Amino acid sequence: MQKNKSQEGLTVKKEENFSEWYTQLITKAELADYTSVSGCIVFRPTSWQIWEKIRDEVDKRLKKMGVKNVYFPLFIPESLLKKEQEHVKGFAPEVAWVTHAGNTKLQERLAVRPTSEAIMYESYSKWIRSWRDLPLKYNQWSNVVRWEFNNPIPFFRTREFIFNEGHTAFATKKEAEEEADKIIGMYKEILENYMAIPGIIGKKTDKEKFAGAEYTMTIENYLPNKKAIQGPDFHHDGQNFAKAYDIKFKDKNGKEDYVWQNTWAISTRMLGVMFALHSDDNGLVLPPKIAYNKIVIIPIGFEKDEKVMKKAKEIEKQFSKYEPILDDRLEVTPGYKFHEWELKGIPLRIEIGPKDLEKNQVTIISRDNLNKQEVKIKYLDKFVEKELDNIQERLLNNANKLLQSALDKAENLKDALKKIKDQKLVLVPLKNSEKVEDILKEKTNGAKTLNIPLTQPSIKGKKCIISGEQADYWVYVGKSY
Amino acid sequence: MQKNKSQEGLTVKKEENFSEWYTQLITKAELADYTSVSGCIVFRPTSWQIWEKIRDEVDKRLKKMGVKNVYFPLFIPESLLKKEQEHVKGFAPEVAWVTHAGNTKLQERLAVRPTSEAIMYESYSKWIRSWRDLPLKYNQWSNVVRWEFNNPIPFFRTREFIFNEGHTAFATKKEAEEEADKIIGMYKEILENYMAIPGIIGKKTDKEKFAGAEYTMTIENYLPNKKAIQGPDFHHDGQNFAKAYDIKFKDKNGKEDYVWQNTWAISTRMLGVMFALHSDDNGLVLPPKIAYNKIVIIPIGFEKDEKVMKKAKEIEKQFSKYEPILDDRLEVTPGYKFHEWELKGIPLRIEIGPKDLEKNQVTIISRDNLNKQEVKIKYLDKFVEKELDNIQERLLNNANKLLQSALDKAENLKDALKKIKDQKLVLVPLKNSEKVEDILKEKTNGAKTLNIPLTQPSIKGKKCIISGEQADYWVYVGKSY
Repeated sequence: MQKNKSQEGLTVKKEENFSEWYTQLITKAELADYTSVSGCIVFRPTSWQIWEKIRDEVDKRLKKMGVKNVYFPLFIPESLLKKEQEHVKGFAPEVAWVTHAGNTKLQERLAVRPTSEAIMYESYSKWIRSWRDLPLKYNQWSNVVRWEFNNPIPFFRTREFIFNEGHTAFATKKEAEEEADKIIGMYKEILENYMAIPGIIGKKTDKEKFAGAEYTMTIENYLPNKKAIQGPDFHHDGQNFAKAYDIKFKDKNGKEDYVWQNTWAISTRMLGVMFALHSDDNGLVLPPKIAYNKIVIIPIGFEKDEKVMKKAKEIEKQFSKYEPILDDRLEVTPGYKFHEWELKGIPLRIEIGPKDLEKNQVTIISRDNLNKQEVKIKYLDKFVEKELDNIQERLLNNANKLLQSALDKAENLKDALKKIKDQKLVLVPLKNSEKVEDILKEKTNGAKTLNIPLTQPSIKGKKCIISGEQADYWVYVGKSY
Repeated sequence: MQKNKSQEGLTVKKEENFSEWYTQLITKAELADYTSVSGCIVFRPTSWQIWEKIRDEVDKRLKKMGVKNVYFPLFIPESLLKKEQEHVKGFAPEVAWVTHAGNTKLQERLAVRPTSEAIMYESYSKWIRSWRDLPLKYNQWSNVVRWEFNNPIPFFRTREFIFNEGHTAFATKKEAEEEADKIIGMYKEILENYMAIPGIIGKKTDKEKFAGAEYTMTIENYLPNKKAIQGPDFHHDGQNFAKAYDIKFKDKNGKEDYVWQNTWAISTRMLGVMFALHSDDNGLVLPPKIAYNKIVIIPIGFEKDEKVMKKAKEIEKQFSKYEPILDDRLEVTPGYKFHEWELKGIPLRIEIGPKDLEKNQVTIISRDNLNKQEVKIKYLDKFVEKELDNIQERLLNNANKLLQSALDKAENLKDALKKIKDQKLVLVPLKNSEKVEDILKEKTNGAKTLNIPLTQPSIKGKKCIISGEQADYWVYVGKSY
C-alpha cells in the first residue's frame, strides 16, 4: 500500500493561510509545477485540458462573430515596438530581449512579444487599403512573455502566459465601440457558465487602462483571500495605433482615414482564479462543465467479485461522454483512491461494491459538498446529468455570494478606508485624475481602482473622496493582484 | 471594377521558375506574408485554418492513444540545455538567446526553445518514480525557434515554426520501439488522407539522425521542383536523455533503471509541401478534406434577378457544413471572382445565373482540373459530395505518380551520379559511415541520404557505391531541402 492521506493531501487550511494552501493545491493536485526558469510554470495535463476547453469554447464563439485566426511571429524588432510611445513605455521594462543567435550578435535586439500590436499592425498597414478590407477581425492564440519583477504566482502572474489576442480594425469609431458588448458579453458567458466565476463589468480609469488604449473595459473577479483580480479585458484603441503604424483606408468616396481599432484577451490567469475560487481543504474543486474527466468510478472488492468490475465497466461505457476514470488499481485501498480523486477534483465519484450490487444501486459523492447519495442504477443516467448541473449551479451561487458579500459603498475617505481595511471592494465617488489615484493608493496601503461599473448610481453632487471636488464617477476600489 | 487578372494572378509558371512561382503563390494566395523579422512569417487565415485542422486531427488520434497534452516554458536555461552533449551540439549554433529582461542583464542566458527535451526532462526526472508512472505519454503544440542561416523559405524553412512535440517514456526498450509504427502510421494517414501527400517511410542514417537520438524514422516527401523534403519524424532516444537528465524508475521488483524515450513531431513545414505539391499556374490547389472553405458560390446577374440570389442562398445553407463562401460583391465582375477564388484555391466553384435557373441546374468547376460540369439542382447534394472526394483522390494520385516517377535505383557510383543529376531519388547500397556520406555529398554536389526505406531489397553481396566494401543497407540519396 502507498503513502497515506497525511502525506499526500493539503496540510494547511484555505482560511488560515491562503497563499500556502494555493501553492500546495497547484502542486499536489498536479495542476502545474515549477521549473528552473524562474517565474515560468509547466501546465500539467489537468490544467492544460481545461485551457484547451476554454480555448475551444471561446474560439467557436469568435468564429461565429466572423473572427479569423492568424499567427504572427514571436519576435518584434526593437524599432518596431517603439513606434507607439505609450505602448512601449508600458511594456519595455518587462521585455525579454533576444540579442544573439548562435554565436552571432544580432544587429537589432528582438523583443519576445509581450503582446502583438506592433508586429501585427505593421502587416495591417500593408493589408488594409480600402473600405472593402474592413472590418478586419483577426485573433491569435499565443504565448507572451512579460518579465515581471514582482513575486510570480502560478497562473495568476507568470512571466510567460498564454492568451487569445483579438485585434480588430473598423472603418468607424461607432462600429469599433459596438464590439465591446459582444466581446465582454462572450467572456462573461464563458466565465459564468463554464468556469462559475462571477465578476464586475466596468471601465478602467485612465490611470489603469492598457498602454496605448483610449479606454479599457474589464471583468474584475474576486478571490477567497479577499483580493480582486483582473479578468478578461477589451481595449478600444481609437486611432492611436493606426496613426503610429500608419493603417489607413480609402472610404467609398475615396477619402482616406485611419482605422479604428480594438484588442481583447482572456488568459491562462483565469485557470488560477477558478482553482482558487472553488477548491477547498481537501483539494481541487472544478465546475463540471470545464472538467475533462467528470466522473471517477471506484469498484470496491472487485478482486473477489467479478460482477463488481463488470458493472463498473458498464457504467464507464454508459458515461463515456464524460471521460470517466475507472480506477482499478489493486495496489492502493479504496480510501486512498477517494482521497486522491478528491484532491484532483473529479466532480462525481461513483462507488460500487458487492452490497451496492445486491441492492441494484451505487453510491455517489459530489465533490463540491462531499454529499453522499445512494442511487438506483436504473435512475443513474438522469441522476448523474442532474447532479453535474447541480454542482455547476452551486459553485456559481457560492462564488456569487462571496462576491456580493465583498461589495460595499462609501462616500467619504474615512468610511472608505475602514471598509478597504475590512477587505471590501468599495464603490466610491472619485475624480478622473492620476494624482488622486496616487494619493488613494498611498492612503490605503496599496488599494487601487478596479473599474467604473457599467451601472452607475447618480454622481450628481457627490464629492471625490480624495480631492473634495465634484466626482467624475463611482469606481470600485480595493486590494488587487 | 477592380484590377484585372494580369495584375493579381501568378506571373511565372511553376515549371519554368519554381522558386519564384512558390513565392508568388504564398503571397498572392494570401497564405503567408513576410514581416520585418527576417526569416519569420505571418500565417494568414487560409494557412492557419489548415494548420488548425491538422492539429485537431492529429490531436484526436493522439488522445485515443492515451497521449496527454501539456505546456512547458518557452525558455531553457543554458546550463540545462547543455546536459546532453550530442543534443546541444546539434542545436546550439541556431539558438536565439535571451540575455536581458527590461534593463536587467540575466544571470544566465535563456535559450528560446529549439525543441523541448531539456526543459521537459528536468520535470520528468521529478515526476517519474516507479513503474506505476509509466508509460508517460505527453505532447505539446508549441512554437520553436531555430535561427538557421540558410536562406529561409516560407513554411519550408522558417526561423520560428509550430509543431507538435511528443515526448514519451517507457519501462522497456521494446515498448518504446513499438510506438514507432503507431506514430509514423498516424502521420502517414494524415499526410495521405488529408493532405494528399505520399512519402517514403524509412530510417535515417546515423549521420542524419536527430541530435541525441539512437535512431530516427522519417517520412520523406518529394516536391515538383524535384527535391526531397523531410516530413514528420519519430526518434527513439534509447536511454540517452534519461541518463543525461537522470530519469529513473523502480520496477515492480524495486530495481532501479533509466526510462526509454521517444520523441516525434509534425510541423508547419507540411503546409508548404502541400501548397507546392498541388498548386498550379492559376494559384492554390487544396485537397478538399483540408480546405476550410470547400465551396464558393457565385451568383451571376443577381442584381437584376432576385431569384438568382434566393437560390444561391439556399445552396449556401444546403452546404453549410462545407463553410461555403457566397460572393455577392457588386463592385467586381464574375470573371474577376472566378480568378480570385481559383488563386485562393477553393476546391469547388458553383456558378448560378438566370439561364441555369431556367434549366434547374448550376455550373460546377473543380479547382484541380478546371473541368466544368452542368448539374441538375436535384442531384447537387450527391454530386458535390462525390466530386469533393474525386478531387481528393486525383490530387493524391497525381502526387503519387510524381513520387513514383522520381524513384530510381543504382548499384554503382557512375550510374548513381547520372541519376542524381537527373534529379531522381536513387536507392543505392551504402556503408553506415559518416565519412562515406561526406564523400557522397561532395561527389554529388550536395545530395544527401534521405532514409533507409523499411522495405529493403537484399543487401547480400552488394558493394557500397563509395567505399566498395560490403554495403550495410539500401538508402535513398537525392537533393533535399
